[in-house]
Amino acid sequence: MEKIYDLIIVGAGAAGLSAAIYGARANLSTAVIDSKNIFGGQMLNTPEIDNYPGLPSMSGFELSEKFYSHASKYNVDFFEEKAEKLRCEKDIKSIICKSGSILKGKTVIIASGGVHRKLGVPGEERLLGKGVGYCASCDGALFREKEVFVAGGGDTAFVYAIYLSRICSRVHLIHRRDKFRAAESYVARLRNMKNADIITNEIIKSINGNEKVESITVMSGSAEKEYPADGIFIAIGVEPDKSLYEEILDTDPAGFIIAKEDCKTSVEGIFAAGDVRSKYFRQISTAVGDGACAAHSAELYLER
Amino acid sequence: MEKIYDLIIVGAGAAGLSAAIYGARANLSTAVIDSKNIFGGQMLNTPEIDNYPGLPSMSGFELSEKFYSHASKYNVDFFEEKAEKLRCEKDIKSIICKSGSILKGKTVIIASGGVHRKLGVPGEERLLGKGVGYCASCDGALFREKEVFVAGGGDTAFVYAIYLSRICSRVHLIHRRDKFRAAESYVARLRNMKNADIITNEIIKSINGNEKVESITVMSGSAEKEYPADGIFIAIGVEPDKSLYEEILDTDPAGFIIAKEDCKTSVEGIFAAGDVRSKYFRQISTAVGDGACAAHSAELYLER
Repeated sequence: MEKIYDLIIVGAGAAGLSAAIYGARANLSTAVIDSKNIFGGQMLNTPEIDNYPGLPSMSGFELSEKFYSHASKYNVDFFEEKAEKLRCEKDIKSIICKSGSILKGKTVIIASGGVHRKLGVPGEERLLGKGVGYCASCDGALFREKEVFVAGGGDTAFVYAIYLSRICSRVHLIHRRDKFRAAESYVARLRNMKNADIITNEIIKSINGNEKVESITVMSGSAEKEYPADGIFIAIGVEPDKSLYEEILDTDPAGFIIAKEDCKTSVEGIFAAGDVRSKYFRQISTAVGDGACAAHSAELYLER
Repeated sequence: MEKIYDLIIVGAGAAGLSAAIYGARANLSTAVIDSKNIFGGQMLNTPEIDNYPGLPSMSGFELSEKFYSHASKYNVDFFEEKAEKLRCEKDIKSIICKSGSILKGKTVIIASGGVHRKLGVPGEERLLGKGVGYCASCDGALFREKEVFVAGGGDTAFVYAIYLSRICSRVHLIHRRDKFRAAESYVARLRNMKNADIITNEIIKSINGNEKVESITVMSGSAEKEYPADGIFIAIGVEPDKSLYEEILDTDPAGFIIAKEDCKTSVEGIFAAGDVRSKYFRQISTAVGDGACAAHSAELYLER
């Protein structure tokens, strides 16, 4: 007979791994699926994480390792699979994976996080991997002694720029406004970097180059400017990959799943945790709380 | 001129220290006050914590140390003071301490957690410290080779009983119902302890003894029973110490501060984080999320 899990968790980032810890500790038979062969989700994209209480100055890779090894202490089945569709039949939920395999569970926690938001300008897609990137800790090393731009004004953009300024000859953080969402400590640190500067109130119009990035074109007021560039990292936020759930769950206009603190979605037995949930503040420290709440809600649902 | 902090945090448990990390990183001048000379709040009462993602199998003391040392990396002023009253005058909030000193701030995060709930039975108060305790990791060592009871059915009660069974000759967990709120993993672990047993559906009526605890009296159905006992640890939850804020903030019937995920209370510029907030699930992993959200809300309030 095919296995029916008590709990299937889609996504092995901070929220998913926290949910796995709580689910397994509650003695639920628990499966975690993630399309990547390294678990950690968005954490993996971050060169330095200093705001997860108790574990200061971690690389995203190290912190991911710690989360994964913690969850692995318990009886959790991990699958490297891309979840494509979620179906509900009576009390059983099915996750249909890209490989064709199907996982079945009595409850599902969607903790699939987000994907990098695109600028949507000419050249961005064509030059992806040829100077255009979304993850400084993944690709930064390819730009040693080069001149790069970072687009964005949040924590991630600043963390990227700080990280890259240690590798690249010159880093320009470029932001469409003159106010930053980033923590002041990051802004101050970048301002202290000798080979970094901050460009505000300029909007990227295109990324140019034949085989690889050669320049970017921006609008500054009504004037167009071109900056030479060897690369550009785009850090303007994440958006959810809603294809998994959009047919059956209520979402907000941006596609995030509507669920309150208890992580309950519009369908009984399905819960949303972490960045994929429509929520107040997206952080590792709020994602772990979501994971705990979602697993607790799943446990209460199974006991009903 | 007296100092006016951007942010005063009352309570140095998981929520308060997380808020301090976020507040200081946002470049807010930040003070933390706690009545105890060791920071960590409720964590300190817990012999083993295994569900804070990334840091498995920690003692509450170790985890508290990690949180405190993380927060101490930043420019945070720590005060050992008992906050007694909170006052608001225009945009300035004042914390009046038991010592007579007054701290002033533009924003306040209340993260004062809870105090141990009492059984409210004869003998409980009179024999406190003479066999009656609320913190196994604090006082457990005094009961080496003795016979003790633990009252309660949640995670804390089971963690206490597991911890005490390694120290005491015999441990009885006693619970008024036959269902437990505790994670199944804890229940299973206690059931496997040779010198521990679980008594259900019995209600403690009194704690007896002259100079120290000698027995407890319980009701089992309509019959009264007396068990010999050297000690009893009461782990039936926490309730907030509402005297600080009850005159100015909206609370729920149990005295917890009403605030949503953004941690905003009924008074602008005052936020509630962690166990003191009326919330879904009280855990270290949800407290750190609250700390982050509350500090973020304070930052946005100051920028207004």
